[in-house]
Parts: sequence; C-alpha cells; structure tokens
Amino acid sequence: MRLATLRDGTKDGRLVVVSPDGQACAPAPVRTLQEAMERWDELAPQLAAATNFPDPLDPAQIIAPLPRAWQWLDGSAFASHGELMDKALGIEPIKTDKPLMYQGTSDRFYGPTEDVRFPSEDLGIDFEGEFGVIVDAVPMATPAADCMKHIRLVVQINDWSLRKLAGPEMKTGFGWVQAKPPCAMAPFAVTPDELGDQWRNGRVCADLLVDWNGQRFGAANGEAMGFGFHELVAHACATRDLVAGTVIGSGTVSNANYREIGSSCIAERRGIELVDHGEPQTGFMHYGDSVRMQGTLADGHAPFGVIEQKVVKA
Amino acid sequence: MRLATLRDGTKDGRLVVVSPDGQACAPAPVRTLQEAMERWDELAPQLAAATNFPDPLDPAQIIAPLPRAWQWLDGSAFASHGELMDKALGIEPIKTDKPLMYQGTSDRFYGPTEDVRFPSEDLGIDFEGEFGVIVDAVPMATPAADCMKHIRLVVQINDWSLRKLAGPEMKTGFGWVQAKPPCAMAPFAVTPDELGDQWRNGRVCADLLVDWNGQRFGAANGEAMGFGFHELVAHACATRDLVAGTVIGSGTVSNANYREIGSSCIAERRGIELVDHGEPQTGFMHYGDSVRMQGTLADGHAPFGVIEQKVVKA
Repeated sequence: MRLATLRDGTKDGRLVVVSPDGQACAPAPVRTLQEAMERWDELAPQLAAATNFPDPLDPAQIIAPLPRAWQWLDGSAFASHGELMDKALGIEPIKTDKPLMYQGTSDRFYGPTEDVRFPSEDLGIDFEGEFGVIVDAVPMATPAADCMKHIRLVVQINDWSLRKLAGPEMKTGFGWVQAKPPCAMAPFAVTPDELGDQWRNGRVCADLLVDWNGQRFGAANGEAMGFGFHELVAHACATRDLVAGTVIGSGTVSNANYREIGSSCIAERRGIELVDHGEPQTGFMHYGDSVRMQGTLADGHAPFGVIEQKVVKA
Repeated sequence: MRLATLRDGTKDGRLVVVSPDGQACAPAPVRTLQEAMERWDELAPQLAAATNFPDPLDPAQIIAPLPRAWQWLDGSAFASHGELMDKALGIEPIKTDKPLMYQGTSDRFYGPTEDVRFPSEDLGIDFEGEFGVIVDAVPMATPAADCMKHIRLVVQINDWSLRKLAGPEMKTGFGWVQAKPPCAMAPFAVTPDELGDQWRNGRVCADLLVDWNGQRFGAANGEAMGFGFHELVAHACATRDLVAGTVIGSGTVSNANYREIGSSCIAERRGIELVDHGEPQTGFMHYGDSVRMQGTLADGHAPFGVIEQKVVKA
C-alpha cells in the first residue's frame, strides 16, 4: 500500500491511497495520515482494500505524506557517514554504544517538489538523503524486538542541513537548532511489504540515487545501517511514549565504499576530500541549485517517488 | 489576561479565560489555545474582553494550558546554572556567544498536578524549574528587537530530566532524547502585562519557589537570564519559521548567590556540593517524591498557579 497527501488548503492536507502504477488515487476513509496513524489497526485494512482508483494523481498537488508530525527523531545509523562527518565538522570521534539521535523540527515537512528557503547562501547549505519510518503509538520502554510491529510506514526524507552552524552547535552538546531547518518528504509513504525482500532486519535495502544539479552524486544502499529502525524506535521510546505518527530517520545513507558509490550529502564528500587532499574541494549549495533523490529497488522501481527541490532565497 | 485549558477528553482540551482571583472561568470564543495562538490578533481582544466568569474553576480539571505544541525549544540562559551543570555532568565548559538551546519533545506537556512516570529510579530523576513563553507565528530571521512583540503568553515549566543519561547524550553532540522526557506546565498561561513591571527586558523577574517533598529547595529569580526571551526567540527563528504556538524555555532558573537562595534542580545542588565537598551528597528523586513550583511576584501573587507533581513507576 502506498499513501499520499494532497494539497487542500489545510495544514494536514487530504490523504489518498495511490494506485500500483502511481498514476491514480482513491479517497481514503479518513481525512489525514495523522488520523490514520492514530487508528491504524482499524483503518489500515480499509486503506488496503482500495482496488478502484478513480482520480488521476496530479504530482503538483502532492505535499509531504505527513505534512507535519508531533515528533521527528533522526538517527545517524550509518558508520561510514559518522566517520566522515567527524572529519568534515572537525569534531572528536563520538564514543557511544547507543544509536545517535537528535530531535528535529517537525511542525512542517516540505513537499517533494517544494522550494526550500534559506536566509543566506553562506551557511553551508547541504542536502541529506535518508530513509525513515512512521510508527503508531509506542509505549515507553518497548524493547527493540517489539518495536518492529509498530513500524507501519516507510518514507524517504531530505534532511536539509546548514553545515557552518552544525559543528559549533554540536560542540555545545545541546544538538542542532539553527543547523537543522525543516526536512522534505518524498511523495509516497509505503507499507514495508511494498519493499518486498528489500525490507530486511528493519532496514530499507534500497539504493538512494542522489543527483545534484543533474549530476549523479551518490547511490548508497540503506542496508548498511548499524542499527535497524526497530532499534532506533526502541532508543527513542526508552523514557517516553511515542505518539502515533512519530517519524524516525536513519540518518544520511552511506556505505563504506563511498569512493565508488558516492555520498548522500555534500559534507561527506568534503570529509573524503579532506582525507584525500588535505582540504575540502567541493563547495556547498547555492541559490538556484537543485537536488533530486530517488530510493530505488533492484528492479528499478521507485516506491517512494522522487524528491526534487530547488534552493531559493528566503 | 490568564488562560487555562480544561480536560474534555480531547488531546488539546478546552480553552477558558480565568477570573482575576483564579477561582472562576469563562468559555473562550475559540476551542483551543493552539487555535488562539494561530489567530491571536483577532482573538486576543475577545479573550481579554471577558468580565463575567460564570463557571467555577475546578483545579482537578486543569491540564497544561498548551497540552501539546508543534515546537518546544528550551534555552539555558542562566550562567550560574550552566557553570554548575558543567561540573555536575562532568563536561568541558561550553564556549559560545550564542544562546544555548535544544529541541525537546512537545507532543505532550503534563498538566500541573499530573504524576510523572519513569521506567526506573536509577536514571537520576530530576526536576528543572523554568519560565517560558509562547509565540505567535515568527518569520524566519526576525531580529531580536522585533521578536518581543511575538511573545504573547508567559508560562511556568517543569522540565523533567534524567541526569544519568544527560551527560553521555551531551557528549555525542546530538543533544538530549532519552534524558529529556515530556515537561509539565503550570495551570495558567498569562499575558506579559499580568507580571506588571516584573516583566522587564524580556525576562520574568519573579522568584521561582521550588519545594522538594515539602522542603524549600530554591527561590531563584528569573531576572538573571543572560539572554532575554526575545533573544532566545531570535536564535530559534534564525533559519526557520516558528509556527504559532511554539514554546521557548528559559532553562533552569538560577542565580549566582545559589548558596543563599538554593537551586531549581537537584543537579545544580550536586554541582555545588562537588565544588564544596569534592563529591555530590544529595541523591536524585525516588518514586513517591513530589516537587512543587510556584513563580511568585513581589506582592506574593502567583500568576501561573502551582505545579505539584509526584514521581511514579511507569
């Protein structure tokens, strides 16, 4: 099952069920995805029962499947990304045996083709290609094995980042506020079964194809997560209940063979350049630049659709 | 004007206007405080016009004035608190000329008398007495001077903290997830004019009386903030729009003469003990412990009402 949300003038939009070919949709028996997450056990069978898709799906009307969420907790579960970011940001390697995770702003997620506004070009504007999951209500202290069944939907995310602010904010220990403005989501939130056997061990084992200004920049695979999403959910709920509709992110998708397959963010490439050449060579994004991201299965199918955003002046 | 929210079976409750003596209330012309924040210019005059308070105000029905918010960004604006926390948590002193701020969980705020549940007594359970503000919509990159007018309401907050998790999370640079479960809010959200001349320079210049198990623990004054709330709002909105109803916290209220007036959290007292005796002597909270917090003006009036919560097993 694939779900999308259409622009309707409200902040939460209107939920629809998407046809297998992604060209048409059916009205959902509930107004918003947030409401569907809150009543998932009751509503999922009704959503999945749609076989008739009477309405053409207009890409221009698609906003983020969950246009705002009560919680967005983003992990950093790819070891090769972490190592390169320590270098790129000039911070000491982080020592912990728990997942890395921060709480981000969730009052809005940009739609898949929405321009992203920044007040300056000098902040180190960077994309971050990620996968994520949306859970139903998870009680406090649920163990990882039991968290798997709370993962109801899988999404694809662009976690916009401002790198010149990121290192200094990390050094305070308080995490990121200014360095992490709102993220974007790809058009379709999908049930894990849509990924077939490329949903394994709580991981999205798909390639994330990333293009910057039309040039291939990365094609890392999501299987390399050091912790599965169920373990990230367990980390998040250790001392709090997770409200239905909480979004949990993987962190930037990254593989150890980054020299061959590239990266899902610019900062990581700069970390590689620092290692190889003693200094970063690639600059950050400028106004007018675009980024395209497409999670892709082995058969070429793109279950989440495509994120394609342009950077503009606020 | 003082506003409260009453339990009505929904997550956002029902907004009421509170009488000057705090004993009665009038229905609001809008259902929730979130909606009032979104339409503040239009609704504030109607809310302020209430002169007839027909309904008795039952304290047992009062929940947090804003029971959930789209964003909760908490500062740490009291220098003496920061210095003691560096010692208590065993971290290097933080070097920055910007406000310290983290993004916390905002999908629920406990009501003023709601029990707070934790999965273990061994996590270093601690209260943190704070003041906070609620803003209407603040556009990205609004300068501090212009942020003042977006501060529509002032609140009092108990920022529950789990200290044994806090130091390790800080050291990752990602900020706090497990160490910062949901906060509580005092009964009344008040317009700044309710504080008279004790609202100055974007600061709540009131004493925060904190009692732990019935014993006075602290009476620090909110005037000592190193940054005013308008400056905290400007920090928060530097690279993002702030949605109406965003809550911004002061961080633990703390004064340099802490040996005389005490502290608004246990960790700070432990920091003092570490300095004075080489090791902390005061333990953290246990199941069954209670904490009471009351922001108090010079004339003895408590505009926010009282937080009084008990710690229980999850």
